[in-house]
Amino acid sequence: MRNHRVVLTRSLAGVPDAGDFRVVDEPLPEPGEGEFLVRHIYLSLDPYQRSAMAGRHMLGRQPLVAGDMPAAETAGQVVRSRHPAYGEGDYVRHFGGWQEYGLSTGERTERVDTSLAPLSAWLGVLGMPGLTAWASAIELAGVHAGQTVLVSAALGPVGSLVGQLAIQRGAEAVGIAGSDEKCAIVTREFGFCACVNHHRDGFLEALRAALPDGADIYHDNVGGQMLADAFSVLKVNGTVILCGLMERYNDPARSKPLDLALPIMKRAVMKGLVVSDFEHRRPVFEATVAAGIRAGQIRYREDRAAGIGQAGAHFSRLMRGENLGKALVVLGPERALGT
Amino acid sequence: MRNHRVVLTRSLAGVPDAGDFRVVDEPLPEPGEGEFLVRHIYLSLDPYQRSAMAGRHMLGRQPLVAGDMPAAETAGQVVRSRHPAYGEGDYVRHFGGWQEYGLSTGERTERVDTSLAPLSAWLGVLGMPGLTAWASAIELAGVHAGQTVLVSAALGPVGSLVGQLAIQRGAEAVGIAGSDEKCAIVTREFGFCACVNHHRDGFLEALRAALPDGADIYHDNVGGQMLADAFSVLKVNGTVILCGLMERYNDPARSKPLDLALPIMKRAVMKGLVVSDFEHRRPVFEATVAAGIRAGQIRYREDRAAGIGQAGAHFSRLMRGENLGKALVVLGPERALGT
Repeated sequence: MRNHRVVLTRSLAGVPDAGDFRVVDEPLPEPGEGEFLVRHIYLSLDPYQRSAMAGRHMLGRQPLVAGDMPAAETAGQVVRSRHPAYGEGDYVRHFGGWQEYGLSTGERTERVDTSLAPLSAWLGVLGMPGLTAWASAIELAGVHAGQTVLVSAALGPVGSLVGQLAIQRGAEAVGIAGSDEKCAIVTREFGFCACVNHHRDGFLEALRAALPDGADIYHDNVGGQMLADAFSVLKVNGTVILCGLMERYNDPARSKPLDLALPIMKRAVMKGLVVSDFEHRRPVFEATVAAGIRAGQIRYREDRAAGIGQAGAHFSRLMRGENLGKALVVLGPERALGT
Repeated sequence: MRNHRVVLTRSLAGVPDAGDFRVVDEPLPEPGEGEFLVRHIYLSLDPYQRSAMAGRHMLGRQPLVAGDMPAAETAGQVVRSRHPAYGEGDYVRHFGGWQEYGLSTGERTERVDTSLAPLSAWLGVLGMPGLTAWASAIELAGVHAGQTVLVSAALGPVGSLVGQLAIQRGAEAVGIAGSDEKCAIVTREFGFCACVNHHRDGFLEALRAALPDGADIYHDNVGGQMLADAFSVLKVNGTVILCGLMERYNDPARSKPLDLALPIMKRAVMKGLVVSDFEHRRPVFEATVAAGIRAGQIRYREDRAAGIGQAGAHFSRLMRGENLGKALVVLGPERALGT
């Protein structure tokens, strides 16, 4: 048996492309005492990985160089175990990285219940992006009935759930997305009352038209000009959740700074969100969202590629904003015929 | 009787200097029906007036040009009245502008009680700067015992009161000011436990040394690099009150923008403050602070110049940060011998 993992061919500059990555073939690692080997079935691709690769994220303070493997969450199945708490066949989520197999000591690893929701959902709507949305809408913004929530990157796994959680609580959601196709999905599948394409001329006017009374809450995944535009439709005393800086992940030098006069003039409350602070809320988040999925109230969408060799190209697609939903690479069948 | 008022000799660029202003001599205006004439005793000079003169402030959306008189609050005495609610001898505060006499219809005018505190205090510690400090420390930050509050422009009328209100509530205050002389006043007169001179080399290290456990609250009068430095000593989940942008009042083009990664990494709550939102809190603010002054718990410091002809030079001093306390121009005696 062999493992295939993806490494950088060079340090990244700007938007990554497939040529920045190559696949390395190597022997399958053997679990030592207290370790187990996970066959990765799904590899999670997320925008924060771009800044982590550049050494600009909490999860990665050193830039990756040629030969380094990007870190990432994966969902998979234990295939060999020398760990007392994990046995062969267990489905788990862990920080396995961009590879087909990964060792775990149990650290940063959770068993996942595939009877509650499909395995891949534990990387998206029930995973880190989902918990991020929960932290934003429920914990930090405290959205309630009658409010209007504006959500950037509204088709993504965070934004789409922020809007749906708001709707579930009796609020209205207005989305921002990067194409008419995305906007159509945001309104039809996710129930947002409107969605504005920020790549169209007249974006700000369209945003104002979609929010005649303004927004109570803005969930910001982007920063930059979009944050400035959002302030122009934010109600006085509105809330802004600072969650992501997608605008700068590819190239921080091109970042447009926030004019602090905007939050002052709007008497805004801005709150910085770091998802790891909300681990203690995971049980209520998982129970609520899993129930919402089963009841058909909460939907999610995945943007899949197949095979470890596609990871680089699929990540490039994500960082160009072309994905339609949670970006995943399928690395193997959910039920293996034998390892 | 003549009135003297100050007008701009040219549109402002950068730090104002005395030559940007000249005094105009004109006849005393006569109050019409429903108006009254106020003899200005104190003219309030405040940093926000610089951005108002440039058309960049809520109170002034058009840049002033040569011949325009700057707006400002004044404290004075009614000398002629054709208004039913105001009589000769009444002490009032109103938006009289940079001149010796001003007409009022009663709008944006309040009678002030000089038995509670001296007339000049109603422009500073009991005026707009004082209410700003109250809004920051009490209303928005909700400071309480055991916390540590970091205050920029700590010798100014806003900063010095933010710190003293925090101390009154059982918190500790650490100041930032622009000279060793200012810092000595901040600690000796206002009871801050420490004050750091931001013009000294090693400012950030000194700030860290003054806040070994970090700050729970940062009151920001400045923006720019000082805000970035403050984030480096802010505790996780700390609060930042965005109150002023002194860094940019003279020259917005030189402004250093906020890196939004800082509030995200600190899970900060940032709140924009506009003092006019807190008019309804003026009674409790005035009662509490006036009592504090009488009890010797709250102190204030004034930086005075004498005569309308000094207004421009004194404003220049303020905008160079050389003032030691609330900037005022004394325009006449508190009790006139006769008008």
